[in-house]
Amino acid sequence: MTAGAEQIASEDIPALMERIGQTARTASATLARASSQTKDAALARAGELIETRCDQILAANAKDMAAAEARGLSAAMLDRLALDRGRVEAMAEGIHQVIALPDPVGQVMAEWKRPNGLVIQRVRVPLGVIGIIYESRPNVTADAGALCLKSGNAAILRGGSESFHSSHAIHECLVDALQDAGLPGTAIQMIPTTDRNAVGYLLSDMARYVDVVVPRGGKSLIARVQRDARVPVIGHLEGICHVYVDESADLRRAIDIVVNSKMRRTGICGAAETLLVDRACAGTHLAPLVDALVGAGCQVRGDASTQAVDARVEAATDEDWVTEYLDAIIAVRVVDGVEGAMDHIGQFGSGHTESIVTEDPAVADRFLRDVDSAIVLHNASTQFADGGEFGMGAEIGISTGRVHARGPVGAEQLTSFKYRVRGSGQVRV
Amino acid sequence: MTAGAEQIASEDIPALMERIGQTARTASATLARASSQTKDAALARAGELIETRCDQILAANAKDMAAAEARGLSAAMLDRLALDRGRVEAMAEGIHQVIALPDPVGQVMAEWKRPNGLVIQRVRVPLGVIGIIYESRPNVTADAGALCLKSGNAAILRGGSESFHSSHAIHECLVDALQDAGLPGTAIQMIPTTDRNAVGYLLSDMARYVDVVVPRGGKSLIARVQRDARVPVIGHLEGICHVYVDESADLRRAIDIVVNSKMRRTGICGAAETLLVDRACAGTHLAPLVDALVGAGCQVRGDASTQAVDARVEAATDEDWVTEYLDAIIAVRVVDGVEGAMDHIGQFGSGHTESIVTEDPAVADRFLRDVDSAIVLHNASTQFADGGEFGMGAEIGISTGRVHARGPVGAEQLTSFKYRVRGSGQVRV
Repeated sequence: MTAGAEQIASEDIPALMERIGQTARTASATLARASSQTKDAALARAGELIETRCDQILAANAKDMAAAEARGLSAAMLDRLALDRGRVEAMAEGIHQVIALPDPVGQVMAEWKRPNGLVIQRVRVPLGVIGIIYESRPNVTADAGALCLKSGNAAILRGGSESFHSSHAIHECLVDALQDAGLPGTAIQMIPTTDRNAVGYLLSDMARYVDVVVPRGGKSLIARVQRDARVPVIGHLEGICHVYVDESADLRRAIDIVVNSKMRRTGICGAAETLLVDRACAGTHLAPLVDALVGAGCQVRGDASTQAVDARVEAATDEDWVTEYLDAIIAVRVVDGVEGAMDHIGQFGSGHTESIVTEDPAVADRFLRDVDSAIVLHNASTQFADGGEFGMGAEIGISTGRVHARGPVGAEQLTSFKYRVRGSGQVRV
Repeated sequence: MTAGAEQIASEDIPALMERIGQTARTASATLARASSQTKDAALARAGELIETRCDQILAANAKDMAAAEARGLSAAMLDRLALDRGRVEAMAEGIHQVIALPDPVGQVMAEWKRPNGLVIQRVRVPLGVIGIIYESRPNVTADAGALCLKSGNAAILRGGSESFHSSHAIHECLVDALQDAGLPGTAIQMIPTTDRNAVGYLLSDMARYVDVVVPRGGKSLIARVQRDARVPVIGHLEGICHVYVDESADLRRAIDIVVNSKMRRTGICGAAETLLVDRACAGTHLAPLVDALVGAGCQVRGDASTQAVDARVEAATDEDWVTEYLDAIIAVRVVDGVEGAMDHIGQFGSGHTESIVTEDPAVADRFLRDVDSAIVLHNASTQFADGGEFGMGAEIGISTGRVHARGPVGAEQLTSFKYRVRGSGQVRV
């Protein structure tokens, strides 16, 4: 199933990557012209194969898990890597959700007529070839492959070395499904080596084959991509998400939103990492908020004002304001009103998702207007930062970059456009 | 006026660029919140100052011209560099056209309500800080500065060394206009040195200050940007534009479109560089097309079939298919139908603008669907590739990249967006 893995010598990486790039580019032309029916048929077949090959996928995952345990990976890492029957079914179900999305390719985004009679259409087209670099979650293989296929893009996948066997077993389902539907199997390729030089080559030497790279992962991956990329990147920084509880916040509502933002699922990028409380309501709101968090099983690290209201609060350091815990830990700070909150977010935030809890519509509008993050919410949990919750369908992640796509990146965001102009002999004066 | 230019030591470049980046970032926050009225007032003042300081601008340009002549620059380069009263007035007029554009910032691009009651808005916001690297045309200083200001972005301009004095004189008008309107003068900065290390620093070390770089210029500039950029780039490759004359083309119409596409203005990126003629109509159409081009003053370089119909045709080499002449020269090739034309364009084109001349709507649809360029036209001149001609207003150029913006890049394309979500206490299940 994964024969040849790890056996590719470093000096052969350029030839390997050139071949992958060229075949992906060729496949992308076919994909761009494939009908919605054909693409959906391939996706349906992929879902089917993932379900029927569940045992093989779990066997491959068992190999990865054994190696990961032997290397002493953390419990959180192991959990991200682990597959079971339910997770495999969820992957197939995810593919069915992608089938249900509208095909973005060919959509006429706008159409207008010029005084000289030219009719101009702005039409969605695929981006072309998308490189996806991710880490331990094997399900990203299915999710990313399916979204690229739906949007008519060829994909070059590079998963983490820990999930190598799992991802390859899933990838085989995608390739077989493409071929069963009459599409080139090279439309979704997986780099068949864990050699890090392959990532370097993908980032720096493949601009003529790769239209955009989407990195999904932690700080060190993102830092490497930012340092090395010579191809366009759709940026996914970490989610240092904030909830700001304003003077006028309803306490019950604030508690619900803060506890949900932090604790519903702590491992997702939309989970809150920092709670900011207005000094004007700290006397009434801070202690109950901390108590609710601790009661929900959250470790609280706070500034001096927060420590003063609850003995269970540990001291926060500057490092806490810039840490994406992805865990049941929260940093808490008392700030001077919405201005103080916005200053803190501007200084320490990652531009992902922030929420304000307030009953004052003017303060809410101020926050929604001036906080410069991809998603800003009023009186709602940061855990809504999700393509599905936005009604946009499956997503490859939440972009914290400002160029091309911002917020949830789904099938539509994996497209570009072109202009079609129809004339009747017009020449320019 | 340009005191200090060229006097900055290379070792001081990082400190200079850091200061420019920091102040641009700070100014961008003010610009993002500036009202349309304030931005338009600054633009109006800039137009006024450019007109009233015409003599100073021309004096600065005379210095640049003298230096350029002493260095033996080509006539085409000198023409791009030269200013006169008419060109200065055209610059001011360009700014008035930018004032007339709608302000993209704050536009609600979409709004929808989720079943749980959350109301989601997608709202346009500025990109932030835009770096613009250009060459000899001094008017880019005014055009680019005005478009960035209109779209609420701070700009860092880096013009070519030949136009140093001219661009700085124009830049002073912009800075004074910003300050007269109560906006920070640092919102439009010009790098005060011709040291090439400054460009390197801008491209590689300013990712935390610069949101996107827009290069405007020839092959060597673009190659450098592609090699060195660690910041997102909105790509402007050359325009190797094609006109394909199909079997069913009306000859009169074909001649009009081909001659206009090539000869109306030869120096713009939307000028045609290659003519492709269907073998099926070469017997009737090729000689008259070549004759019309030669008659209009165009040098014709052709393949063997083209040379066979007219003794004035020189032999084309493979180099001709990939050359952006920007001059009264055209390459001509006979191809096998629309498939042959699309193969040629796929192999040699730059993804900018291509036109098909045909009376067969099915063939036209095929070309418009499958040619993967930013702009594809049917029975119209390639010289319509222009933001103004598209009804989109002034533009900073035509993007040949696929990410973020494709085709004309105007004020709207210099924006990003964010999501504003209004709730009433929603938490995620």
